[in-house]
Amino acid sequence: MRVIVTGGDGYLGWPQAMYLSKRGYDICVVDNFNRRLWDLECGTDSLIPIFSLQERVAAWRELTGNTIEIAIGDLTDHNFISSVVRDFKPDAIVHYGEQRSAPFSMIDRHHSVLTQVNNLVGTLNVVYAIRDHVPECHLVKLGTMGEYGTPNIDIEEGFIEITHNGRTDTLPFPKQPGSFYHLSKVHDSHNIHFACKIWEIRATDLNQGVVYGIETDETLLDERLATRFDYDGIWGTVLNRFCIEAAIGHPLTVHGKGGQTRGYLNIRDTMRCIEIAIEKPAKAGEYRVFNQFTEQFSVGQLADLIQAAAKQKGHTVEIQHVPDPRVEAEVHYYNAKHTKLIDLGLKPKLLSNVLIDSVLDKVEQYKHRVKKDRIAALVNWRRTTNAVGYGASSSKEDQASSEPASERKPAAHAGRR
Amino acid sequence: MRVIVTGGDGYLGWPQAMYLSKRGYDICVVDNFNRRLWDLECGTDSLIPIFSLQERVAAWRELTGNTIEIAIGDLTDHNFISSVVRDFKPDAIVHYGEQRSAPFSMIDRHHSVLTQVNNLVGTLNVVYAIRDHVPECHLVKLGTMGEYGTPNIDIEEGFIEITHNGRTDTLPFPKQPGSFYHLSKVHDSHNIHFACKIWEIRATDLNQGVVYGIETDETLLDERLATRFDYDGIWGTVLNRFCIEAAIGHPLTVHGKGGQTRGYLNIRDTMRCIEIAIEKPAKAGEYRVFNQFTEQFSVGQLADLIQAAAKQKGHTVEIQHVPDPRVEAEVHYYNAKHTKLIDLGLKPKLLSNVLIDSVLDKVEQYKHRVKKDRIAALVNWRRTTNAVGYGASSSKEDQASSEPASERKPAAHAGRR
Repeated sequence: MRVIVTGGDGYLGWPQAMYLSKRGYDICVVDNFNRRLWDLECGTDSLIPIFSLQERVAAWRELTGNTIEIAIGDLTDHNFISSVVRDFKPDAIVHYGEQRSAPFSMIDRHHSVLTQVNNLVGTLNVVYAIRDHVPECHLVKLGTMGEYGTPNIDIEEGFIEITHNGRTDTLPFPKQPGSFYHLSKVHDSHNIHFACKIWEIRATDLNQGVVYGIETDETLLDERLATRFDYDGIWGTVLNRFCIEAAIGHPLTVHGKGGQTRGYLNIRDTMRCIEIAIEKPAKAGEYRVFNQFTEQFSVGQLADLIQAAAKQKGHTVEIQHVPDPRVEAEVHYYNAKHTKLIDLGLKPKLLSNVLIDSVLDKVEQYKHRVKKDRIAALVNWRRTTNAVGYGASSSKEDQASSEPASERKPAAHAGRR
Repeated sequence: MRVIVTGGDGYLGWPQAMYLSKRGYDICVVDNFNRRLWDLECGTDSLIPIFSLQERVAAWRELTGNTIEIAIGDLTDHNFISSVVRDFKPDAIVHYGEQRSAPFSMIDRHHSVLTQVNNLVGTLNVVYAIRDHVPECHLVKLGTMGEYGTPNIDIEEGFIEITHNGRTDTLPFPKQPGSFYHLSKVHDSHNIHFACKIWEIRATDLNQGVVYGIETDETLLDERLATRFDYDGIWGTVLNRFCIEAAIGHPLTVHGKGGQTRGYLNIRDTMRCIEIAIEKPAKAGEYRVFNQFTEQFSVGQLADLIQAAAKQKGHTVEIQHVPDPRVEAEVHYYNAKHTKLIDLGLKPKLLSNVLIDSVLDKVEQYKHRVKKDRIAALVNWRRTTNAVGYGASSSKEDQASSEPASERKPAAHAGRR
C-alpha cells in the first residue's frame, strides 16, 4: 500500500513515516521545511537535536533497508503536489502538512493570514489532486479537538443528532475554535466534508488531542532518527513545558485558573491511530470524524503530576499561576467522546509516571540546550501585534502585507522573512 | 454617522451607498472592480447598462448634492484597507466586498482557491483594521442563507439551543454549505465570531436570501444610477434567469425536480435591513446573526409564477426540467426563521405580480442585449474543470497555479487572466 505523508519532516510526520515504512507501506514524505524556517524566525529550536530529512531517510535505509521517498515542495504550490500525487499514485494521504501552532497564528495579522491561507490552500490542493488523479485514495486529515472549543454539552465525534421542534437530523457538531489556527482546521473540515459529498472522495478527519512523548520504537533505533521536542511558548505544549520548567528549577507556570481541560494522547497512540484509519478506510463519498485522544486532563492536574514526578527525583518544584495569555474559559465542563478508534482496535497507552520519568530524564540530558527566554507564553490573544522574533521585521505591519504561502517555493519564503 | 460600503460598485453595494447617502449618512465606497473584471473573463454582462463608479458618484452629487467618497483598491491588500479605515474613521462598515457567485467558485481549482482566499483574507483585513483603528466600529457583514444548507430541522438565526445527554447549551447552528463560495462565507462567519470574542468588536452577520428586483427609489432617479441586472449562468439568480427566458421565448429551465427551496427578498428590503442593522448596532463583543429574507419559494413555484405573469402579457412559456448542475437535495424540508429583523422594524415588500411585471418590462426593453449562450448553467459541480471563458486560459490548470487575490493591485489581476 502506497502512502504519502505530508509534513513528513515534522514532530509526528517523521515518526509516522518510519512507523508505516517498518510495517511494509511504501512511503513518500512531502515537506517544504516551513517548520524549521519558522523556528529560525521565532528563535526557537527542538530540545533534542534533529537531523536533516535527507540524513534521516539515509539512516532509515541504512538501518532497515527500507526506502522512504522524499518530495520537497509547498502544498500551496498546486503544480507541485498535483504532480507528486499523480506520479506516486498513493492509496492514502496522511495530511500533517499544516501550520499547527495556535500562538504562531495569533502573533499578528500577517501570521493569522499566513496560517489560514497556508492550511486552507494546501488542503484544497491535496483534495483536488486526489479528485483529479487518484479518486479512490483515502485522505487521512489531522484535525484537532480544539475545533470543538468547550461547549457545555458532551462533545460527539464529528456529528450530533439534534431534535428540534419535533424534527430530528444528524448534523455537523457545532464548532467554537479558539485561535486562527484552530479556525483554519474548522475551515478545512468544512471544505473536505463538501468535497466528499460532491466528488465522492473518501476522508477521515482525526480530531486529535494534545500529543505527548518523544519516543517510538523507530525513533529509538538511532539518534539520527529522533523527532523534535518543542517546549517553547510558540510550538511547545503544556506537558513538555512543565517538564522543562521542572528540569531547570523554574515554577510550573499554569495559565489562569488551570481548569482548562483537553484530551491528550501518547505519540505511540497517534502512530497507531493513523494505521487504523488507513487499514479500515472511509467508504467512497464518506467523510468520517474520529476524536483521537485517550485521556482528559486539566492543566492543573498535569502540573500536579509533574510536580509529584519531579519530587520523586528529589526536585522541589513550585506551581505558579500566571495571567492566561489566551481568551478561553479557565474552568469549564468537558466531556468528549472517543470510542470510535477504540472500537476499531486502538489499545491506549495511558500517561504514566514511567513516561513522565523518561521525558524528565531526556530533558535532563539536554537541558543545556534550553533557551530560557523562549519558555514563557510569547503571544497574547488580546493584542494584534506580538513581538516574537528577535528582529524587528517579524511583527512589522508594513512587511506583513505580502501574503504568505500561495504558490511560492520554499526558498522564496526564506528570502522574504 | 460615517459608513464604509465595501463592494460599493456592485449590485447591492451601489444602491446601498445611495440609500444611506440620501438618509444623511456619510459614505465611502470601496471597490477594486473585480466584479466587472470577472464579467470580462466569463463573457457576461449586466442586462441593464451600468455606468462607471466615477460617473455614478458624479451623477449622484449632481442630482442630490450629496458626496459619496470613493476608495479604489483591493481588500486583500491590507495596507490599502487599513489606511482607508484609519483615515475615514467609520462608525459602521457594510461588507459586501466579496466574490459572491457559487458557480464562479466551482469553475475549477483556481476559482475555488481565488474565492476562498479573496473572501477570507479580505474579511480578516477588515476585522484587523477595525480592531486596530476603530474598535467601536460596527461590522455589518453580508452572509448567505446558503451557509445552513438544507437540514431536516428548522433553521434558527445563527444559534440553536441544544439539549444533549441532560445538558443544554446554545451553540452556533451547524453549517452545511453547498459550494466553495458558500464555504467561504462559513469560514468568514467563524473568523468574525472569534474576533468578536477575543477583541470585543461588534458584528452583525446577515444571512441573506436570494435578492430579486433592480429598482430602488435612488436607482430610479437617473439611468446613470442604475444597478446591474445579472441573468447568466454564473452571476444570475433563478428569478432573473426565468424572466430572461420568458422574454426571449425560451422554456423556463428548472434544475432537477425544482423542489429546491430558499429564502428570497426584494432589493428594497435589503437596503432597509442594512439600515436597521446600522441604526441598532451590536453591543461590544457581540456577534449576532439575522436571517435576512422575507419569503420562501421553491424553484418550481417561481417557475409557475413567472409562467403565469408571462401569460398575462400574452406570452406562452414552457417549463423544462434539466439535469441539476449542482449537487444538492432537489426536494427537501425547509423552514428558516426570520423574525429578528421584523422585530427591529422591517416591513417586508413581498414578491407580487406587480414586481414581476416591472422586471419583465425592463427585460423586454433590453432584450437585444441578452447573450443567449450565457443563460444556461455553465458550471457542473461534479467536474473540477469547467470551460466558462471564451479563451483557453480560464480553465487551464497550469495557469491556475498562480494564486489570486493576495495583495495585488487590480491591474495585476487583469494582466494575469
